[in-house]
Amino acid sequence: MTYNIITITREFGSGGRTIGKEIADRLGYKFYDYELVKKAAEESGMAEDYIKDHGEDASGRSLLSFMWNNAGGSISDLLYIAQRNVIRQIAEEGHCVIVGRCADYILRERDDVFNIFIHADMEFKEKRIVEKYGERTDSPQKRVEDKDKRRIAYYKYYTGRKWGDAKNYQLSIDSGAFGVEKCVDTIMNLL
Amino acid sequence: MTYNIITITREFGSGGRTIGKEIADRLGYKFYDYELVKKAAEESGMAEDYIKDHGEDASGRSLLSFMWNNAGGSISDLLYIAQRNVIRQIAEEGHCVIVGRCADYILRERDDVFNIFIHADMEFKEKRIVEKYGERTDSPQKRVEDKDKRRIAYYKYYTGRKWGDAKNYQLSIDSGAFGVEKCVDTIMNLL
Repeated sequence: MTYNIITITREFGSGGRTIGKEIADRLGYKFYDYELVKKAAEESGMAEDYIKDHGEDASGRSLLSFMWNNAGGSISDLLYIAQRNVIRQIAEEGHCVIVGRCADYILRERDDVFNIFIHADMEFKEKRIVEKYGERTDSPQKRVEDKDKRRIAYYKYYTGRKWGDAKNYQLSIDSGAFGVEKCVDTIMNLL
Repeated sequence: MTYNIITITREFGSGGRTIGKEIADRLGYKFYDYELVKKAAEESGMAEDYIKDHGEDASGRSLLSFMWNNAGGSISDLLYIAQRNVIRQIAEEGHCVIVGRCADYILRERDDVFNIFIHADMEFKEKRIVEKYGERTDSPQKRVEDKDKRRIAYYKYYTGRKWGDAKNYQLSIDSGAFGVEKCVDTIMNLL
């Protein structure tokens, strides 16, 4: 089985993005995380910063929904559609790793997609986000909880599925237990 | 990190039992599935066949509950407690693989337990249960659904957790996508 596309769903702070980037580098695949934001900006005409902030967050539903009510959708829906179109385009090109944004669900009809979920214990995630993004006013735990709460709600709203349900991924792995490098090796061995 | 205990939670027909047995053989660990039933029978005085049929099934709650109401528990609760005590005993002895029976939850306070969830697509499971257990009056799909429905309800009832939630296992893997042997190799590499 050749997997032309790899999707990574990750808890905030689990190192999922780093794992995805490393896999892409080793395979010579294109890597899409913020890179997808740029394409979605071109597609939708929305500002990159807005997509970056709200690309996995359904809160735009209420915020600006009055603008789009007559068109039958919220700004969040418009952003979801823009990202979905970009994900389908890059999947057609193949040989890519896509992080987040319901890519596993959007590409569910294809049979060449390897879906991965990366999670970790809170201690690992707290340590990692402070190292990577620095201290903030909010505690690391609150930052992790806030971010994942939004991702969970976004995923549920647009897919109807539960985020982190093992059955939706060929592999779910605990980066806190094994470390980022071992997760990369495990995925490479399965490919 | 040395994992003295490995727990396997598995969908019916996924090959999880076979994977657990192979891991136990390769590591020289003891293997507990039906073997646990015998110990629970000794512990509780209940018949082995009853435990085999209802050891991951909370339906005994209604069936014979009148017998135990005065004692504050159902026959299913008594069986759960017997199995829990056995699981704690064999965990104390260490170097074992335990299949099913909420072992991941029962041993959650320990830090030497590697929890694994094995799942697969329906086609793989249907094929496997016919090969392994033969044809029955019910369709293979119905047999899979019935068995897992009971396991899910049992797990929910005694742990309050959702069965198959990736966060509860260090590894969740799709045996239908990779095959039983590749799953064994992946687990061995992580150990």
